[in-house]
Amino acid sequence: MRIVQLEEIMPLVSLPNSIDAVREALIAFSGGLIDQPSPMQMLFTKDDGSFFGDCHVKSAQQQGHPYFVIKIAAGFYQNAEIGLPANNGLLLVMSSQTGSPVALLQDEGWLTQIRTAAAGALAAGLKPVGQDACLGIIGTGSQAYWQAALISHHLGLTKVVVYGRHYAASLELCERLNKELGLTAAAMTTAYDVCQVSNILVTVTPSTEPLINLSDLPDELHIVAVGADSPGKNEIAPEIMKHADVIVTDNHDQCLAHGDFGVAVRAGMVAEDAAISLPDLLAGKHSAVDFSRAKLTVVDLTGMGAQDLAIASVVVDGLKL
Amino acid sequence: MRIVQLEEIMPLVSLPNSIDAVREALIAFSGGLIDQPSPMQMLFTKDDGSFFGDCHVKSAQQQGHPYFVIKIAAGFYQNAEIGLPANNGLLLVMSSQTGSPVALLQDEGWLTQIRTAAAGALAAGLKPVGQDACLGIIGTGSQAYWQAALISHHLGLTKVVVYGRHYAASLELCERLNKELGLTAAAMTTAYDVCQVSNILVTVTPSTEPLINLSDLPDELHIVAVGADSPGKNEIAPEIMKHADVIVTDNHDQCLAHGDFGVAVRAGMVAEDAAISLPDLLAGKHSAVDFSRAKLTVVDLTGMGAQDLAIASVVVDGLKL
Repeated sequence: MRIVQLEEIMPLVSLPNSIDAVREALIAFSGGLIDQPSPMQMLFTKDDGSFFGDCHVKSAQQQGHPYFVIKIAAGFYQNAEIGLPANNGLLLVMSSQTGSPVALLQDEGWLTQIRTAAAGALAAGLKPVGQDACLGIIGTGSQAYWQAALISHHLGLTKVVVYGRHYAASLELCERLNKELGLTAAAMTTAYDVCQVSNILVTVTPSTEPLINLSDLPDELHIVAVGADSPGKNEIAPEIMKHADVIVTDNHDQCLAHGDFGVAVRAGMVAEDAAISLPDLLAGKHSAVDFSRAKLTVVDLTGMGAQDLAIASVVVDGLKL
Repeated sequence: MRIVQLEEIMPLVSLPNSIDAVREALIAFSGGLIDQPSPMQMLFTKDDGSFFGDCHVKSAQQQGHPYFVIKIAAGFYQNAEIGLPANNGLLLVMSSQTGSPVALLQDEGWLTQIRTAAAGALAAGLKPVGQDACLGIIGTGSQAYWQAALISHHLGLTKVVVYGRHYAASLELCERLNKELGLTAAAMTTAYDVCQVSNILVTVTPSTEPLINLSDLPDELHIVAVGADSPGKNEIAPEIMKHADVIVTDNHDQCLAHGDFGVAVRAGMVAEDAAISLPDLLAGKHSAVDFSRAKLTVVDLTGMGAQDLAIASVVVDGLKL
């Protein structure tokens, strides 16, 4: 088994390649070519019952593909207090012919960041916006950075506004987006302000309470909800889903169990069959749905094994194993 | 992350230690101290739909334990044709405090063999037998070897009889058991013969059709069914469960979904609540159940993440990480 460190992985993955690979994988999923078991989830709580970390295992296999993948991603949100990154993980590539481990991508969770943001870019791209459109980001962690990077790249946007719980962290993220990506990024002091000036809004926090309420929203907004990927998490108030013209999920069952969509369904705000599928949209199966005319649209992303297979394939192709 | 090869792992694991560790983990599970998500399962089929491999992912976390584990085990049953072992896999040890990978045990599936056989030994040990009792094994793969090794060690048995589809493979296994473990092992040409002379019978095949029927059984037999761990697998005819005085499962829900117990329930032969729990038995919670008086008893094992945590802890303790 080849053991591949992050330094070796990073140069093999470009933003456009990762978006293309994830798009193709989601289209293959829509076509029934990818099998992915239900994700495995572990939650870590303190003695007082309070939540401090989680670990997700996702996997996928594709008909005719030489490899299948098992991806482990951990988020331990108090790691910053001891100087460690919150996110960690690795990706295991196995042979579909023999079951032998082929490569261990010790990516420290970086590939999960990229493939998640690649799906975010594809989800954001459902809404036709001009290049002067503003991208709002709720959250200031690594995924906030990568969503800004991939969405702005994919849609040719340059304006970003950020809100996070800690204003200093918002400022810091904006500085990185300015310096490293040449974006015009500004920190704001309320989620309301970010919503009001944005055309596309991405939420990327581990919040367990809604951060965005219906009263925060402008007349027209395309929301991509990324943070909620466990039953206890929730970023988008359930009534937002009720008022949405279109609701999209990356994976219906996962979003029902783990995402903001499920919170809204359990709150009785929307029906279980109220959402359409992002993979189906990308595969051109919902041509009647017109995002340009819709006012409020929400995409709920929980992350799919198919994305892990896609991004691992980019790396494995680059390694020429 | 420490990467540990099989050669380094093997000397750290003794048979008694592995049985003790698995017993303690199952008792902890019975006490509600171990959480293990539902296993993840991938099946691999050829273009004609025929099954040739599977991969299981299991995980477990224990209250107060410094590590949690994610275990990957693959079984690709045609690998022998190209000179590769059927079983492969690895075990990932992660920090319960930070979510960081701590060690990758590149055990090639060996630890899964040992922890599975350790549970087999504990399951076999439910039945009080004398040291002249005969252990019957149906199957000739690695797990057949390890079940023979751990059960004979644990119960002080010396007589083993073996039946497999290929007589040559049965002979080869017996030779290994004789030479390497000093057991008196004999190959037989029918499953019926093995059943008739055995006091304890262990089934360890990937069969999808029953290998043991009610008419094969002697008056008294304690069966440990290990092979069936996917919905399509089945070694023990459903009517055997119907006639059993006691049915035990390692994990009720898993055995219902993946084991011989589930096959019997779906065939209408036994009720869903007909089985008692191996972890509860080991924890002394079923003291009224008397295996010495029972004639026909069946233990259905599907393998638990708790066992992987137990065996990984033996290795990690030995590594002094």
